[in-house]
Amino acid sequence: MTDARRHILEVAERLFYAEGYRAVGVDRLIAEADVAKATFYRHFRTKDDLLVAVLDARDARFREWLAGRVEALADAPAERPLAVFDALAERFAANDFRGCAFLNTMVEVANRNHPAHEASQRHKLRLIDYLATLLCEAGVPDANALAPQLMLLIDGATVTAVREGGADAAARARSLAQVLLTAARPGRRRR
Amino acid sequence: MTDARRHILEVAERLFYAEGYRAVGVDRLIAEADVAKATFYRHFRTKDDLLVAVLDARDARFREWLAGRVEALADAPAERPLAVFDALAERFAANDFRGCAFLNTMVEVANRNHPAHEASQRHKLRLIDYLATLLCEAGVPDANALAPQLMLLIDGATVTAVREGGADAAARARSLAQVLLTAARPGRRRR
Repeated sequence: MTDARRHILEVAERLFYAEGYRAVGVDRLIAEADVAKATFYRHFRTKDDLLVAVLDARDARFREWLAGRVEALADAPAERPLAVFDALAERFAANDFRGCAFLNTMVEVANRNHPAHEASQRHKLRLIDYLATLLCEAGVPDANALAPQLMLLIDGATVTAVREGGADAAARARSLAQVLLTAARPGRRRR
Repeated sequence: MTDARRHILEVAERLFYAEGYRAVGVDRLIAEADVAKATFYRHFRTKDDLLVAVLDARDARFREWLAGRVEALADAPAERPLAVFDALAERFAANDFRGCAFLNTMVEVANRNHPAHEASQRHKLRLIDYLATLLCEAGVPDANALAPQLMLLIDGATVTAVREGGADAAARARSLAQVLLTAARPGRRRR
């Protein structure tokens, strides 16, 4: 990747996340990145192309960050599914936290067939795969059925944290996840 | 309320919900509502004023709709907390479903001090009050602590339904809520 391309991606990611995709026009992006218009359009034919590239880069970085934090926070595989929520709490407490860039994008583009909606969906499906792996390695039965449930809790916590402004929602979602995992464990009556 | 004011509110609510608040400009609103510019500005000094009025009207109507559906779907007070998710499933399946107008607005306005963010927060707190009442009437202990947990599940289901396009997330959130309510019931070991 060229330096110019990487720089434009970084500036766009920061502005889209902080202010919203629609709130930031191409002229503003070009000015903030301090590149020539021709340079911008050589790398990104349209603002939509740029948005998809921003999301794909963020997807990779977010999942790498999460896996790293979960390993650092929980030594034992059995503790890792819940450690996801401890990692989230760190994120929610950040000054620049403004929710999930992928959920936010789905709200803003509105159209389900937009490539940015598809990029957001790809991100969530990869996260669900990662959660299924954590659950499986923790010895939780029905890992594939439970992973989308954890994803729902993560996304619920994320939008709640945006609304409330603070990290409390991560702890609340963690306690919900704990109830869920306890109910799923073998040797307990299932209902 | 005058007919013109009501008409502008209806047009704005429909367009903001379908396309997003930022995607719809005042000129478009005036054209679609087919009112004189002076009429528009007599009722709404700014687009932000209009947005807050749209949200407050929607808050009242949404809560009335939900309470009505929950009563229709569940005769017994004990069944009403879970009936909330059956009502949601109906909503998620609607052709024009595009998530929660209040969560969407919080994403779009970005600024936590914006009056539309506050209007959205008011709506959620009123819904949490309603959920606490349902839980209390159902005989669930800790109704005030559980109500925000149900709200988190509702919002998680809502953003998941936007992502997936379908009503499945309501059933998944319902099963999570059921596990939660079962764990909260007296006579069971609490953890």
